[in-house]
Amino acid sequence: MVRTGRRPGESGTREAIVEAARRAFAEHGYEGATIRGIAARAGVDPALVYHFHGSKEELFAAAMRLPFQPSEVIPSLLEGEPDRLGERILRLFLKVSDQPGGNPFVALMRSASTNEQAARMLREFLAREVIGRVATALGAPDAELRATFVGSQLAGLAMARYILRMEPLASADQDAVVAAVAPTLQRYLTGDLA
Amino acid sequence: MVRTGRRPGESGTREAIVEAARRAFAEHGYEGATIRGIAARAGVDPALVYHFHGSKEELFAAAMRLPFQPSEVIPSLLEGEPDRLGERILRLFLKVSDQPGGNPFVALMRSASTNEQAARMLREFLAREVIGRVATALGAPDAELRATFVGSQLAGLAMARYILRMEPLASADQDAVVAAVAPTLQRYLTGDLA
Repeated sequence: MVRTGRRPGESGTREAIVEAARRAFAEHGYEGATIRGIAARAGVDPALVYHFHGSKEELFAAAMRLPFQPSEVIPSLLEGEPDRLGERILRLFLKVSDQPGGNPFVALMRSASTNEQAARMLREFLAREVIGRVATALGAPDAELRATFVGSQLAGLAMARYILRMEPLASADQDAVVAAVAPTLQRYLTGDLA
Repeated sequence: MVRTGRRPGESGTREAIVEAARRAFAEHGYEGATIRGIAARAGVDPALVYHFHGSKEELFAAAMRLPFQPSEVIPSLLEGEPDRLGERILRLFLKVSDQPGGNPFVALMRSASTNEQAARMLREFLAREVIGRVATALGAPDAELRATFVGSQLAGLAMARYILRMEPLASADQDAVVAAVAPTLQRYLTGDLA
């Protein structure tokens, strides 16, 4: 950014905070990055960071251009019938991924697959904000393992459908993908894995 | 390579061919690369390429450091009980992946996820040498789609277990992974997907 000496407006401050967050998460991981450190890096008061972005999770979602925050979306996914949870997760994943304008999951996977710092950041974020929440909701003793199996199938869909674009999966319509894959996710969530 | 004017020995020639193949596959994809072109690039007669590497598939496996060729391994996987094919595929995948010294699938996924030429190369190789063979063996009208669903779960395991190293999946023993994931692969291969 060219510094003109002019005080940046609200959108400039927001952007500076998000950019500072992006660099802090990349350097320190999700666990290590702090709101205080991000505020210092952006040259603003920590209170202003909380004003724009209520939590570290929200800041991460903004920095990574995620379309939602797990703390908001997971409770609403859990509200419906338990035996269709796999389908609801998958339909949300496909809806976000198939939208024009770039798949945010693909962007995260690309950086995580080639950069260990990005992998650590994503791993810590998923462990803290996703796996734990899903596991608590499931309540089973092996709930965290179950959540990571769900994650593995979603990551593989992102790889095969959106990155490698393997046919005929890449062009299959959402209902065909749901018919095949939702039962997989449902079994990982609530089925017999022994 | 420093050219000394000395005629390279057999291992030098082999290495030159593999290196030429690696560059040819990256530039032209799996379909576009030819034995003739690779030979010319390595400065050897095409007959010598066939002498060292019997086929384009074998040359690709050598160039990508794959531990096996689909044309050899797929028929032997198909030999056993059809209703345990998913488990045999998964056990081979885990055996190769868990070996010390680097996971060849991870290396392929890393390059494919950040480089469109590498993605095209892998996509064409899988379509030509893997998906088609599995689909022919399955014989179902939707066999190619089934094969790509299998590929999606395996790619996702590589991502979650070996690249992101999400716990507890990353440390789960092979039998626990097989108990959870083999039924997924088996259903994709022969189950009801409608």
